[in-house]
Amino acid sequence: MALETLSSARSFGGTQLAIRHSSSETGTDMTFGLYLPPQAEAGAPLPLLWFLSGLTCTHANVVEKGGYQRVCAELGLILAAPDTSPRGPDVPDDPDYDFGQGAGFYLDAAQPPFDRHYRMESYVLGELPELIAAAFPADMERQGITGHSMGGHGALTLALRNPGRYRSVSAFAPIVAPSQVPWGEKALGRYLGSDRAAWRRHDSVALIEDGARLPELLVDQGSGDSFLERELRPGLLEQACADAGIPLTLRIQQGYDHSYYFISTFMEDHLRWHSQRLA
Amino acid sequence: MALETLSSARSFGGTQLAIRHSSSETGTDMTFGLYLPPQAEAGAPLPLLWFLSGLTCTHANVVEKGGYQRVCAELGLILAAPDTSPRGPDVPDDPDYDFGQGAGFYLDAAQPPFDRHYRMESYVLGELPELIAAAFPADMERQGITGHSMGGHGALTLALRNPGRYRSVSAFAPIVAPSQVPWGEKALGRYLGSDRAAWRRHDSVALIEDGARLPELLVDQGSGDSFLERELRPGLLEQACADAGIPLTLRIQQGYDHSYYFISTFMEDHLRWHSQRLA
Repeated sequence: MALETLSSARSFGGTQLAIRHSSSETGTDMTFGLYLPPQAEAGAPLPLLWFLSGLTCTHANVVEKGGYQRVCAELGLILAAPDTSPRGPDVPDDPDYDFGQGAGFYLDAAQPPFDRHYRMESYVLGELPELIAAAFPADMERQGITGHSMGGHGALTLALRNPGRYRSVSAFAPIVAPSQVPWGEKALGRYLGSDRAAWRRHDSVALIEDGARLPELLVDQGSGDSFLERELRPGLLEQACADAGIPLTLRIQQGYDHSYYFISTFMEDHLRWHSQRLA
Repeated sequence: MALETLSSARSFGGTQLAIRHSSSETGTDMTFGLYLPPQAEAGAPLPLLWFLSGLTCTHANVVEKGGYQRVCAELGLILAAPDTSPRGPDVPDDPDYDFGQGAGFYLDAAQPPFDRHYRMESYVLGELPELIAAAFPADMERQGITGHSMGGHGALTLALRNPGRYRSVSAFAPIVAPSQVPWGEKALGRYLGSDRAAWRRHDSVALIEDGARLPELLVDQGSGDSFLERELRPGLLEQACADAGIPLTLRIQQGYDHSYYFISTFMEDHLRWHSQRLA
């Protein structure tokens, strides 16, 4: 599986790449962003942080607007930014922004017609890290994961379901309980089917209620986020973590919205959090 | 002339605004970006830095990708990001990316049909700063100016033509001698007419040759910029500044291209340069 470099740009002494490859999981071409800090030139393995993006995003949004390159260059962190779904004319889609292309929810769909291409969980857990490990100096024993909104959901659920896989976990304005909110009910219902028991494996709050654990967790949430009450509901995560004894640092950031202005403001804190735990 | 706030987002403790207004200079609606650092809430006047953008850009490119908010918040700098031309169905345009809408070249056109709307020089020098001064705590005695590519041309020429107006001047990969390069020959020829004598007032190298001066100047230029040899030619500026005794700090940044990855990498250096001179 060849990697095709679509673009390569010097950034803060390192290199920001956009890479395309043919994915066996999704049956489509997939594009991801990869930042290599200056330390990568020495060849020694570096920690790898995953950033999973939110609804409507491609790999490019955080690459262009996240502002992570400066601090990754300082800390020697590789950052990988996958796309949010398979894409292409053969991939089933939906006219709404919150389902279909751009809205893969980091799961493997079980329902036709989505089960053929929508395999983002296997892609992010298996195929993509294997490709990165084979081509770049990433230390796969030192992986961390974060994400925004739907990507925060992805970061939390993938970490909860794969203990030890990610040594550090954080999220920006995550969907914490998709079974209980409109975005999630729509996506889980159509990707997984109507049996809500199957949804629990893709719902952070339900996973914690069912016994999944994380060593600790950092979450930032803007108080001015227009999706806060209806879709995000961080209080549900707070309660679940309290009941389960998971150390959660939940920071409500006054006045911040759901945009990359929010993400970029607190990106540095998350990068330092991860770097400390991946050292 | 009412200002309409199109968006307002918290960013690094300050506020990133996008503002629309009806422009008497261009005869169109114009949109600009304005970052207010946290210090603006105290109401005391703060220095104002202008960032003029390059071909094809709107106000939004640097706002989203320039990464200036963090350092402006630290330094207490207001940053204003105008659009690069008038826009709209009534504004004469061109199918090429390097002329017409998105390519105003920061001059007042003299040739029909462009002279009606293409008045970016008067807009950036007069109307827009007046609007900003009336509505925000900007100290108009402490203005600096920078820009990228065509916007670097704008920053240099406006500063050279208006001594004392801007207390600090810098540029990223500027067009320094438009009279001598294809982008500039096309734009100056069509906006100003075929008399090349008139072009000299909109050409930084020619302005310096004709006696215009700046106290000092910072320019960054990527060595991997695909427009370096054909359109940018920093050596012409270097020679003109040497001949005129203008202290130029020209930094050739190895491997960097013409993109916002280049700009964002060196943005902090420029902001600190300006802040020191605007203190």
